[in-house]
Amino acid sequence: MDPVISAEQAIYAFRPDLRPARTVTPPARLVFETADALGGQIQSPDDRLAGIDFDHVNPATGPVAIRGAAPGDALVVRIERIELPDHGVIVTGPGMGVLGGEITSPQTRVLPIRDGFVRFGRFQLPLSPMIGVIGVATEQDVIPTGTAHRHGGNMDTKEIGEGAVLYLPVAQPGGLLALGDIHAVMGDGEVCVSGCEVASRVTLTVDVVKAAAPVWPIVVTEGRVIVIVSLPDLAEATREATRTAVRLLADRLSLSFDEAYLLASLAVDIGVSQLVDPNLTAKAAIPEHLFGSRGFSPV
Amino acid sequence: MDPVISAEQAIYAFRPDLRPARTVTPPARLVFETADALGGQIQSPDDRLAGIDFDHVNPATGPVAIRGAAPGDALVVRIERIELPDHGVIVTGPGMGVLGGEITSPQTRVLPIRDGFVRFGRFQLPLSPMIGVIGVATEQDVIPTGTAHRHGGNMDTKEIGEGAVLYLPVAQPGGLLALGDIHAVMGDGEVCVSGCEVASRVTLTVDVVKAAAPVWPIVVTEGRVIVIVSLPDLAEATREATRTAVRLLADRLSLSFDEAYLLASLAVDIGVSQLVDPNLTAKAAIPEHLFGSRGFSPV
Repeated sequence: MDPVISAEQAIYAFRPDLRPARTVTPPARLVFETADALGGQIQSPDDRLAGIDFDHVNPATGPVAIRGAAPGDALVVRIERIELPDHGVIVTGPGMGVLGGEITSPQTRVLPIRDGFVRFGRFQLPLSPMIGVIGVATEQDVIPTGTAHRHGGNMDTKEIGEGAVLYLPVAQPGGLLALGDIHAVMGDGEVCVSGCEVASRVTLTVDVVKAAAPVWPIVVTEGRVIVIVSLPDLAEATREATRTAVRLLADRLSLSFDEAYLLASLAVDIGVSQLVDPNLTAKAAIPEHLFGSRGFSPV
Repeated sequence: MDPVISAEQAIYAFRPDLRPARTVTPPARLVFETADALGGQIQSPDDRLAGIDFDHVNPATGPVAIRGAAPGDALVVRIERIELPDHGVIVTGPGMGVLGGEITSPQTRVLPIRDGFVRFGRFQLPLSPMIGVIGVATEQDVIPTGTAHRHGGNMDTKEIGEGAVLYLPVAQPGGLLALGDIHAVMGDGEVCVSGCEVASRVTLTVDVVKAAAPVWPIVVTEGRVIVIVSLPDLAEATREATRTAVRLLADRLSLSFDEAYLLASLAVDIGVSQLVDPNLTAKAAIPEHLFGSRGFSPV
């Protein structure tokens, strides 16, 4: 039986001094049960956004300590399965999201999930389950789970889904992995401030690679190596994502910075993950074939 | 024989008072011969970027007047074929592109094109030919071909490739279509300031839909309807792309703005086309199936 971490064991901030809910020896398979990003406080169309307790949103289940993980290591998280319930919720309101200045009243919807689709009124959207919040204990700062930075956190990156491998930089002994905020589907940008928010069970394996911490989180999936950068300013986030990708190419492929810059202009796709949280998340997707026939490795 | 517009007939700015190089009756198939974005001034690795005439970069072949096109109409451009030569060039230099402050000397490379790939040193990049500059006469402003805005221009959007249908807002009688700056391959962001720049022959058909001008250019390809917005500030460009997509969904699908905002958060992908020209280009990709079984139409 794989260890199950209950949604009762939740944190609301990534910080340096997290206490483990459980400790495992890598490689380990684990199951995380997660509440939705609203802490399960919206269950029907009548539940009002104004009535919820905003001290208990974005819960992240965990943290789990991984034996032997030390600062400077990479935590390697292989996402095997994201189980979905029969419904999710989406919310927005005045001041929320990219166009928060243009809507006039709070909105909550309960969205049925069945037969591989999320239903939004008469529209059917194919499921694309992903993990919104996933991260490790920080080096110094106390960062609410609703915010993303180098430690991971609320990256809201669609590519962090089934089959993906996520590399996180360990900053504290044991790493201390926690996750939550699963979406059954979400568009790049998450423009209204939420996706199809669901409670879930996530099955994954964790492992450690010594002295291989990435500068920013990296997710590898479907032939792409994606650097994920979260900063207060979008232009700066895209610049730092570009810089990180160029340096990674230069370092791994033995190219000069200038050569790697040219190659990135031809082959790397800059994009956005979310535009609505306190830090905004940009991404730089590198074709994995550039790293050779053995693909990407964290060192 | 389809009419051929020679690269000799080139403009360097989109403006209200363009004079047609040719006039056609829609629907019409046309062939545009285009010089590369550097006006063909770099042909060997020894050609120095500092030596080129910057008054003759980003040439756009045309313009072609389309009989009957009037302000408020949509020009419909169906891109059939983009023919590539046996090589392209890529350039960058200090001050150029996203990381222009971090490179120290001008760089020019000649890139062989063969067997379906662009060669960059030992790397092979699959061809993905696209049109960088395509637009129509402007309403009021004189906009260099190196800049993008509502009229189109230097949108550098990868999706403007073979098989795509582009909708441009007609602002002057005849529309006055011109295009150039073909890339054999480019990453989203075009981070170093150029892609694989090539001379080309582009075969397309043009047609007119009355009173159907989109607010911003729209390209439809591979099941996605993509709104293309170019503004000086990236955050504002992503916001305007979101707003335009939400209004389009509300209008076409008979949804309230708030409903459309929620749907967009679930289904619309916000992205970037280029981060390096005077206006930056963001895009909002809407799944075409939302528009029903008949797909997107401009009215």
